Parts: sequence; structure tokens; C-alpha cells
Amino acid sequence: MTPPLRAIVPAGGAGTRLWPLSRAARPKFLLDLTGSGRTLLQQTHDRLAPVTASVTVVTGRAHAASVAAQLPELAEADVIAEPSPRDSAAAIGLAAAVLERRHPGTVVGSFAADQVIRDVAGFHRALAEAVAVAADPAERRVVTIGIDPTGPSTAFGYIRPGAALAVPGAPSALAVQRFVEKPDAAAAARYVEQGYRWNAGMFVARADVLLGLLAEHRPDLHAGLVEIAAAWDTPDRLAVLDAIWPTLEKVAVDYAVAEPAAEAGRVAVVPADIGWDDVGDFAALTDLVPGEEPLRILGPAEQVLADLPDGARGLVVPGTGRVVAVLGLDDVIVIDTPDAVLVTTRARAQDVKQAVARLQAAGRLDLL
Amino acid sequence: MTPPLRAIVPAGGAGTRLWPLSRAARPKFLLDLTGSGRTLLQQTHDRLAPVTASVTVVTGRAHAASVAAQLPELAEADVIAEPSPRDSAAAIGLAAAVLERRHPGTVVGSFAADQVIRDVAGFHRALAEAVAVAADPAERRVVTIGIDPTGPSTAFGYIRPGAALAVPGAPSALAVQRFVEKPDAAAAARYVEQGYRWNAGMFVARADVLLGLLAEHRPDLHAGLVEIAAAWDTPDRLAVLDAIWPTLEKVAVDYAVAEPAAEAGRVAVVPADIGWDDVGDFAALTDLVPGEEPLRILGPAEQVLADLPDGARGLVVPGTGRVVAVLGLDDVIVIDTPDAVLVTTRARAQDVKQAVARLQAAGRLDLL
Repeated sequence: MTPPLRAIVPAGGAGTRLWPLSRAARPKFLLDLTGSGRTLLQQTHDRLAPVTASVTVVTGRAHAASVAAQLPELAEADVIAEPSPRDSAAAIGLAAAVLERRHPGTVVGSFAADQVIRDVAGFHRALAEAVAVAADPAERRVVTIGIDPTGPSTAFGYIRPGAALAVPGAPSALAVQRFVEKPDAAAAARYVEQGYRWNAGMFVARADVLLGLLAEHRPDLHAGLVEIAAAWDTPDRLAVLDAIWPTLEKVAVDYAVAEPAAEAGRVAVVPADIGWDDVGDFAALTDLVPGEEPLRILGPAEQVLADLPDGARGLVVPGTGRVVAVLGLDDVIVIDTPDAVLVTTRARAQDVKQAVARLQAAGRLDLL
Repeated sequence: MTPPLRAIVPAGGAGTRLWPLSRAARPKFLLDLTGSGRTLLQQTHDRLAPVTASVTVVTGRAHAASVAAQLPELAEADVIAEPSPRDSAAAIGLAAAVLERRHPGTVVGSFAADQVIRDVAGFHRALAEAVAVAADPAERRVVTIGIDPTGPSTAFGYIRPGAALAVPGAPSALAVQRFVEKPDAAAAARYVEQGYRWNAGMFVARADVLLGLLAEHRPDLHAGLVEIAAAWDTPDRLAVLDAIWPTLEKVAVDYAVAEPAAEAGRVAVVPADIGWDDVGDFAALTDLVPGEEPLRILGPAEQVLADLPDGARGLVVPGTGRVVAVLGLDDVIVIDTPDAVLVTTRARAQDVKQAVARLQAAGRLDLL
């Protein structure tokens, strides 16, 4: 029997490519983007809770109250509020250090709060294999979930799998040869051809393994996290956190932990074809909103009046009670919110980020 | 010296192709559609007032108060409120009959309240010629202003000019061979090639000439109008109006007066190249809104965030204080109003009418 898994859910990121739905004060993970009645954060919790001993959410102080309100199941101890954003190694590392103190030898897994997984049973099977591989105290492996690519996306990093590991309880686990960064289109096509997997940023490992890798490759960061964790469940938490947190190195967990581990031959991958999506932009969201028609509507359909060419795809999000009339466009995205309306195309969905940057440059912080 | 002209301004029509800007309760003529600070009705009055002895507006009862508010220059007697819409022969005929009683032998001209004329001096020159031709009590002509076509439009009727008339004070006036209805594209191209003119619905004639044509071709309608006009400036106005108006034939002035007059060889045309436009849809409006950029903005430009391909044309009307962000469309129209937002293209601008029909069919009278 595999040991219990404790989930770490980093809930951060502005999701600016989903503006004006996603805002600084109401980021992507706090939104119901699939019309399911549950936000992405809630859906993340829903699929982790049945197969984990605990779920710990790491989020900014500004969002801690919203996280707690959306997840009343969580104890106060299960929400870690960061004083400021210091990237994913600090966020995940702190949660791992706190959990290791509370439950020495525990296995942890990190799962972003703003992703969608359609095949939850498949996800659970992959997780069980990942825990089986990660739990071995001798091999001390970091295990990633390798998503079956649905196409040569340039939006994700890739994982190059190697030989089968033959770990009991993890029949599909493979060694990882290396991680590769987000590629250009030609490289992406080559990677898909060669059987690479998408890196969805899901890692499973013993907490002491993650902390050991940090100690080896980022000793100052590790020392700071351990000091904060030692004070966490004491009255000194805030004083120590506020003193040390701002001094911590800002670095992604991929650079600080995953890549060094891969170079040392200590990373495994469990391949998974589980309907994963990171809802990166409105083009992705269009595919995720359920519907029979090529035009998808997220919200009350009676507020949309559409007359489009046959087969025209698109997404309309009525969000203010007003009628949204869309006539004669082949590919259109219309997002209606109380203080901003966005009109663009699926093809230009990535550029929403630049529009948000222009609003920021123009001082329209009220709209961000 | 030519006699004074009295203007009749029919102010009706829903302008549904300009929905959601134009509404039943706030039709096109009550709107400032060119960013000039004056509504189309006010602009119509502004360009008629300097060259006419009076301006009489004929409008629906629902709009009479708005008309009076927008044109405080008008006396109560200069606003004729129709109990219900009975088409243009009744509207213009009633005004002509009232004006003929007040000023026997006067020349009247009919000018729609929702058109744009860029060259007002040219319009005044054309009007002076039209009055010179129309004033002749022997010839008893109906004179129309023949707009120089800027292209083979299928949205307008055409006028086929004939020989020069050589009327003193009207050097450019021509006889009219016939009126033709809105043509298909091939016929429109042929008409433009052959020197036909657009029929802008502007007629100038002695009031007794218009009434005489009505008496000849629509005797019942004429009798009813004369009876209402006889009571107009008496305490019986409303009683007689409400008794007779609903019984009047609904017919366009073109059919009731202009075409029979043309068949009788009694119509003249003054050709005019005066920057005329009927602001028929958002494609037309795009060209009328001033601006240097291909994307035109009617309203506060700081509420629009646009990032379009080079040379992409379009129109954005921010109307709610919200930011309207438009990214990556080649040809786009976005109309933002408090209860409806429209997204379409210039190419599909004519189809807005069908969308409004669908709203009506769906019982959304609140949006019309």
C-alpha cells in the first residue's frame, strides 16, 4: 500500500490572457470558467480531496480570504498566505517544509489551482503510480505527470521520457531524460513526433526529497524556508515570515528543483492522457465550455443573440445582464463585464496579455 | 427674387439598422451620430433655418416632446404630432395643407430629419435653384434634389434626368424622365454609368401643387388632409385629427405624388454634389465619423483600447463608460450601450435589421 499523499496547490498568477474575466483581485483560479458551478480552485480541490490526506493552498495574502471562502472544507492551517509573490520554489518549498515538520516523511504533490482535468479517474490512476514511484526512500525520485500532447503546442514545456522504470504499482512510469523549455513550432512538432510529453507542472515527491534538492541547489532559499517552517505552527509565524520571506530568492521550482534532479537522473514521469488543459487563453477556454454549437456561451444563453456564418466558432461570455448581439463574424470572442468589454478572435487570444499591459501602462489599474 | 421656402421635416423611422444606438424611444434623428454636438434633427434644422421662412417638423406623438426639447427655436405651431404612423404622403401632405392655409401660395420643401449633408453651402445653392423652378405658378413643377452618386448603391432609388429646363435662376435644373426603385447591383452600376442621380427624398413644390397632385391621384387622402388642416389652428384640432387620421390611406409620397407627377412630365431635378448621406447603417456611419485612423470612434476615445491589423477599418461606439478593447479584427463594429452590446462587421451592417426583428420576435420589446 502506498503512503498518503498531501497536496500542495499554488494558487497564484494573474491569468492576464483571460482579462477582463480574470482580474488581479479575482484571478483565474477563483473563477468558474467551465460553467460547472465550481471555480477552477474548487475543481482542483474536488479532484484532490478524495485521494489525499490533506490539501494545502498557497496563495497571496490578498486572496487568502477568497480561498478560504471558496473552500470552507480547509482548516486555517491548510491555507498558506504569502506576504508577496516570490515565485514557485518559495511557495511550494514553504508548503513542503511546513508539511514535512507536521508529517515527517510525507509524500507531497504540487498541482496548480487553475488547470482543468476532464478525466478525473485517469488522473487518480496516474497519481497513484506517481506516489508509488515517489515514496521509495532509497531512490528519492521526483515524479512528474507527463500529459499526452493533443498537438504541437508552443505554450508548454516538454518532458523527454526515457526507459521504463518497472516500479511495483507504477507499471507505466518512465525515467525522464530531460525537461525542455517552451519550444518554437518546428521543435514542438518534432517533440510530439518523438513522444515527448507536456510538462503540466505537476510534481510528486517526498517532502524531504524536495527539501534536500533545494538544500543542495539553493541552500539560502532552503535555509530561509526551513526557518519559516519551524516558526509556522507557533506564535512567531508572522514575525518570522515577514522578516525572512522578502529575502528569499525568486526562482521557479522547475529551475531550482526539477531540472537539477533530472540531470542527476532522479526524475520519473507517469504518462497521462487525462483531458488536461491549463485554460491559458480564450481560445483554450472556447474548447472547454460545453456546448453543441460552434459558438460557445459561458453564462446565460438567453442574453446572447448570435447570427454567424455556418460553422463559425467563437466564445461569448455575457456577464452584465445586457444583451450581447454578435452578427457575421467567422471567429469571435466577446467578453462582457461591468467595467470592460473585450472583442477579439480565437486566433489573437494570446495578445490579450499585451492589451492588459497597455492598460497598466496607461495607469488604468482599476481595470487590472 | 424667389419666394420664401417653408421646410417640412418628417421625423420618423426607427433606424433599426443602427440598433442598439437607435431605439424606438430614441430614434436615429434624435441622436448625435457624427460627434458634432448636434443631433441629426438639429443639424437638419440648422441648415434649413437660414434659408427658409419656417421649419415644420412632423413626428409621432411619442417624440413630439423630444423634438420640441431639441429645437427650442420652434413655435408650438411648428411641430405637428401624428397620432400614429400613416406613411409619408399623410405626414407631408398634412404639413403642406396646414402651411397652405396659413400662407396661401407658399413653396414647401420636404427634408428628412435623419440625413447628413456635408456641403451646406452647396445644399443652399441647390435649394435656391429648386425654389426658382418650383415657384412658377404656371408650370406647377415638383422639384427634387438629385444627389451625385458616389457609387452604385443598391440602398437608394434613382432619378433619370432628361433635358435642361433653362429656368431663370436655376441654370442646372433638368427635366426628370422617371424615378426608379432601389435597383440590384447590376442595374445600379448601369444607372450610375448613365448619369442617373440618387433620390434622397427631397422635394420642393408649391404647397397647392402637392395638394393638387394628391387631389388628382389620392382624392380620399386629400379630402381627409384638407379637413384636418381646416381644423388645425382651431380648438377642434385634436377632435378632428383623432377622428380622421386613422382613416387615411398609408402610402409613400413617392407613389402618391412624385411618380404620377413624373409621368405627367411635371418633375424637375437639381443635380447636387453636396456630401449627402442617409446614415443608413453602421457602414455608412463609419465613413461619417471624423477621424484620421481607419478605426473610427464615436464617443470618448480614451474608453477604447484598439490593437488592429494595419489599415483595419471599423467603428467603436463606447457608450457606457466601460473600456472597449478590440484586438485583431480586420473589420469590426462594436456598439456599447447600457442594455445591449452589438458586435458585427461593416460588411454585415445591413443585417442588424434582422437581429432587431429577432429581438422583437423574442418579445424583448424593452430592447427595441
